[in-house]
Amino acid sequence: MELSHFDENGNARMVDVSNKKVTKRVAIASGKINIDEIAYDAIRNEKIKKGDVFAVATTAGIMAVKKNFEIIPMCHILNITHAEIKWKINDTPDKDGRYDINCKCIVECDGKTGVEMEALTGVSVALLTVYDMVKAVDKSMVISDIYLEEKDGGKSGHIVNKL
Amino acid sequence: MELSHFDENGNARMVDVSNKKVTKRVAIASGKINIDEIAYDAIRNEKIKKGDVFAVATTAGIMAVKKNFEIIPMCHILNITHAEIKWKINDTPDKDGRYDINCKCIVECDGKTGVEMEALTGVSVALLTVYDMVKAVDKSMVISDIYLEEKDGGKSGHIVNKL
Amino acid sequence: MELSHFDENGNARMVDVSNKKVTKRVAIASGKINIDEIAYDAIRNEKIKKGDVFAVATTAGIMAVKKNFEIIPMCHILNITHAEIKWKINDTPDKDGRYDINCKCIVECDGKTGVEMEALTGVSVALLTVYDMVKAVDKSMVISDIYLEEKDGGKSGHIVNKL
Amino acid sequence: MELSHFDENGNARMVDVSNKKVTKRVAIASGKINIDEIAYDAIRNEKIKKGDVFAVATTAGIMAVKKNFEIIPMCHILNITHAEIKWKINDTPDKDGRYDINCKCIVECDGKTGVEMEALTGVSVALLTVYDMVKAVDKSMVISDIYLEEKDGGKSGHIVNKL
Amino acid sequence: MELSHFDENGNARMVDVSNKKVTKRVAIASGKINIDEIAYDAIRNEKIKKGDVFAVATTAGIMAVKKNFEIIPMCHILNITHAEIKWKINDTPDKDGRYDINCKCIVECDGKTGVEMEALTGVSVALLTVYDMVKAVDKSMVISDIYLEEKDGGKSGHIVNKL
Amino acid sequence: MELSHFDENGNARMVDVSNKKVTKRVAIASGKINIDEIAYDAIRNEKIKKGDVFAVATTAGIMAVKKNFEIIPMCHILNITHAEIKWKINDTPDKDGRYDINCKCIVECDGKTGVEMEALTGVSVALLTVYDMVKAVDKSMVISDIYLEEKDGGKSGHIVNKL
Repeated sequence: MELSHFDENGNARMVDVSNKKVTKRVAIASGKINIDEIAYDAIRNEKIKKGDVFAVATTAGIMAVKKNFEIIPMCHILNITHAEIKWKINDTPDKDGRYDINCKCIVECDGKTGVEMEALTGVSVALLTVYDMVKAVDKSMVISDIYLEEKDGGKSGHIVNKL
Repeated sequence: MELSHFDENGNARMVDVSNKKVTKRVAIASGKINIDEIAYDAIRNEKIKKGDVFAVATTAGIMAVKKNFEIIPMCHILNITHAEIKWKINDTPDKDGRYDINCKCIVECDGKTGVEMEALTGVSVALLTVYDMVKAVDKSMVISDIYLEEKDGGKSGHIVNKL
Repeated sequence: MELSHFDENGNARMVDVSNKKVTKRVAIASGKINIDEIAYDAIRNEKIKKGDVFAVATTAGIMAVKKNFEIIPMCHILNITHAEIKWKINDTPDKDGRYDINCKCIVECDGKTGVEMEALTGVSVALLTVYDMVKAVDKSMVISDIYLEEKDGGKSGHIVNKL
Repeated sequence: MELSHFDENGNARMVDVSNKKVTKRVAIASGKINIDEIAYDAIRNEKIKKGDVFAVATTAGIMAVKKNFEIIPMCHILNITHAEIKWKINDTPDKDGRYDINCKCIVECDGKTGVEMEALTGVSVALLTVYDMVKAVDKSMVISDIYLEEKDGGKSGHIVNKL
Repeated sequence: MELSHFDENGNARMVDVSNKKVTKRVAIASGKINIDEIAYDAIRNEKIKKGDVFAVATTAGIMAVKKNFEIIPMCHILNITHAEIKWKINDTPDKDGRYDINCKCIVECDGKTGVEMEALTGVSVALLTVYDMVKAVDKSMVISDIYLEEKDGGKSGHIVNKL
Repeated sequence: MELSHFDENGNARMVDVSNKKVTKRVAIASGKINIDEIAYDAIRNEKIKKGDVFAVATTAGIMAVKKNFEIIPMCHILNITHAEIKWKINDTPDKDGRYDINCKCIVECDGKTGVEMEALTGVSVALLTVYDMVKAVDKSMVISDIYLEEKDGGKSGHIVNKL
C-alpha cells in the first residue's frame, strides 16, 4: 500500500496523472446540517424568502466546486462540465426536536482524475453557507455526514457508499 | 426574529457592521473524520511520514481561514491575527472497527464581527484535505460533527457548545 | 494635475494612503442591463423563480465587492463593513420594445481610501451575472450607464452624480 | 423556453455541457468609457505615459478573462487559448464636450461552451481599471455599451450584434 | 531560539500577533534578472514599447503584494497602504556579455506585523513576469539576489541588509 | 525577432496558442536560498520537526504551480497533470559560513503551451515560504539562481540549461 500523494521522501506532491486516460467522471457527495426549531421556523416562515438561503448557498457551493483546486492543495485543476446542488429539508424533528437539512452535490468532468473532492468541497461549502446565513438565530448547528455517495469513471469504476 | 443577512426584499446582503465596536474575537471550531483500519494503519505506519498528512492539511486549513471571505459569500474580510489547527488521532477503534481523527481550529482577530465562520471553514478544509490525501486507500470516509465549540468577543459574549 | 497612480517614471503604483485619515466611506454605484421581451418574460414568468436570477447575481456582486482588490490592479485591500445590491425591473418597454433592469450597489468601510471601485465592480459583476444567466434566451443584451451615483467620506467629501 | 441555468426546483446550477462537442470558440465583446476633457487631456498629455494607463488596464482585462469562472458563478473553467484587449481613443468630443474611449476584448478557446462571458468580463474589468486610474481627475465617468459584438463556434453558430 | 511559526507539536501555525502593537511598517526588497544580449536588445529596441514589459511586470508585482497572504501560507492579511515597483536596466554587460535588470519593491502598511514577505513576493513575481514576457527570445535567464534591503517598524526596528 | 506577448500596438496580450498542438510538456526549474548558521541549525535541530518547514513550503509551491495563471498575467490556464517539489540541504557551509538549501520543481501537463513559468513560480514560492518560516531567526537570507533547468515538449523541443 502506498499513499499516492507522497514521494519517496515523504514530501507531498500532486500525483502524476499524465498517463491516465481521459474518461467521463461523475461524483455525488452529500452531507447535512442539524438546526434548532427557531432556525427551522425562520427558514420555513413565509415572510422569509426561503429560496434565497438556498440560492446563496447553492451559488457558494458551485463556486467552491470550481475553486476546489485552490482550496485542497494536492487536487488537480479540472474542467468541470456540470455542477449542481440539491437540498431537502426534513420537516419531521429528530428526538431532540431539531431538524436536518440535507445537501447533495453532483459534479461531472471529462478528465484524467475523479471529481470526488470537488463534490465533497461543494457540499461542505454549501452547508457552511447555510450555517453562516442562519447563525444569527441558531448558534448550536452541527454539520455532519459529509461523504461520497457515489462515483463513476476511471480505474476504480463504480463505487457506491451507504452511511 | 430576523435573518440579518437579508434586506427587506429578501435579497442577500453582507450585514452592516459599520457601527459595531472593534473587539478581540476568538472562535474555536472542531470536527472529525472517520476512517477505516487500513487508512489508520497507513497514517500510523512508520514508513509513512505521518506528519506530512497533517502538515499539508494544517497548511490547507490555515489558508482556508484567510480565504474564508472568498468562499462564504456574505462573510466579511477580517484581519486574522492568529490561526491554528490541532489534531488528535483516536487509537481506539469504534464499534465498527473504524477510527476517528479529530481536528480543531482556533482563530482570533480584532474586528467588528466574529470569526466563527473562519474557524468552521478552517476545520472543514483541513478535514477535506486529510480525506484527499488518504482517499487512495479508503473510499468510505465520513466527515462529521463540525460545530462551533466556543466563541468570545462581541455582543453575544462567551458561547460554549457541547455535542 | 497629476494622475496619482503614477510615479515620476510613469510606472503604475498603488497610491500611498498611509498618511490619510481613517474615516467612514460610503459609495453607491449603479448600472443597467437592457434585455429583449423574451428575456423579460422569462424573468417575469411565474414558472421561473425570478428571485433566483437576482439571488445569484446579488451573491456574485457582493463577492466581487470583496474581491475588488484582486480584480482592479491598483486598488487597496479594504475591510468592507457593508455591501448590498438592489434591483429594479422596469416593466414599461422602451421605444424598441426592450426592457431595462437597474442595479445599484452600496458599499461602506472605515478606511483610508474610498470604496467607489468596490461599488462599481459590484454593480458590473452583478449585471454580468444577469447576462450570463439569461443569455440562453437573449443574445443581444447591453450593459450601460455604470457610474458612481454618490460617495461620501474622505478628503473629497460628498459627491453626487447625475446621468 | 427555459433558462438553462436552473433545475426543476429553480435552484441555480452550472449547466451540463458534458455531451457538447469541443469546438473552437471565439467571442468579441466591446464597451466604452466616457470621460471629461480634463481626463482626456491627462491621458493625451505628453508628460503622462499614456501607454501605461492602457497597459495596466489591458493586463487587468486579460487577467479577468482567465478569472471569469471565479467571478461569474455559473461559468465553466475554460482553457483560454488567446485573449487580447484593444483600445481606441476618440479625439472628437461629443455634444457635451466629453470623450469616449472604446475597448474591445477578443477571446478564443477550444471547449464545450462559449467564451462570451470571458470577453464581456474582460472588457468590463479593463474599463473599470481605466476608471480607477483616471478617477483622481474625473469623478463623472460613465461606462456603457458593454455587449457581445460577435461570437462563433458551437451550436448557435456565428452571431453578430450591432448597437 | 524558536521558529515562531510552529506550535509545540511541530505543526505550522499563523503566529499570534493579537498582542502586538499597530505601527507603521515599511519593507524594501530587491532582486535581478540576468538576460542575454538578444533579450536586452529587444527590450531596448525602439520598435518595442519597452514600457509595456515593465508596466505588465509592475502590475503583476503590485497585485502579488496584495495576494501575498494567499500565496505564502503563514502570512497575515494586511491592509497595504502603499506598494511600488522600480526598475533599473544596467546597460553595461557583465563579463559573459549578459545584462542585469534590477527590480525593487517598496511596501508600507499600518499593522501588527511586517511587510517583508509582501515586498519579497512582489519583487519575485515582477521578475518572473519579465521572464515570461521575454522568454520567447531568451531561454537562459536567471533570477537572483532576492533579498530584504531594508525594513522598519515593529519590535525589531530598522534593519538594513547589504549583499 | 518579436516578443510574442505584444500586438502591433505594443499592448500586452495572451499569445494565441489555438493552432498549436497538444503535446506532453515537462519543465524543471530550480533555485536556492542561502541562510546563516543559526537558521541552518534551527532547521537541522532535532527539537524542530524539519519536515514541516519543507512540508509547508512544498504545499505552497504546488499550490502556486496551479495558481500560476493568476499570478503571471499573460500565462495560460493549464491542466497540470503532475507537480512535485524536491529539496536538498547542503551541509557544507560556503566561504561565508552560510548554507544553501536547493529546491527543484517538476511540472507536467498535456497542453498547447509549456509549463516553464509554472515550474519557476513553484520554485520561487516554495523558497519564499522557507524564507517566511525561518525569518524569525535569520533576517539576511538571499534567494538566487532561479532558472529553468530543463524543458521538453512543444516546438522548441528539449532544452537544458546549466548555471
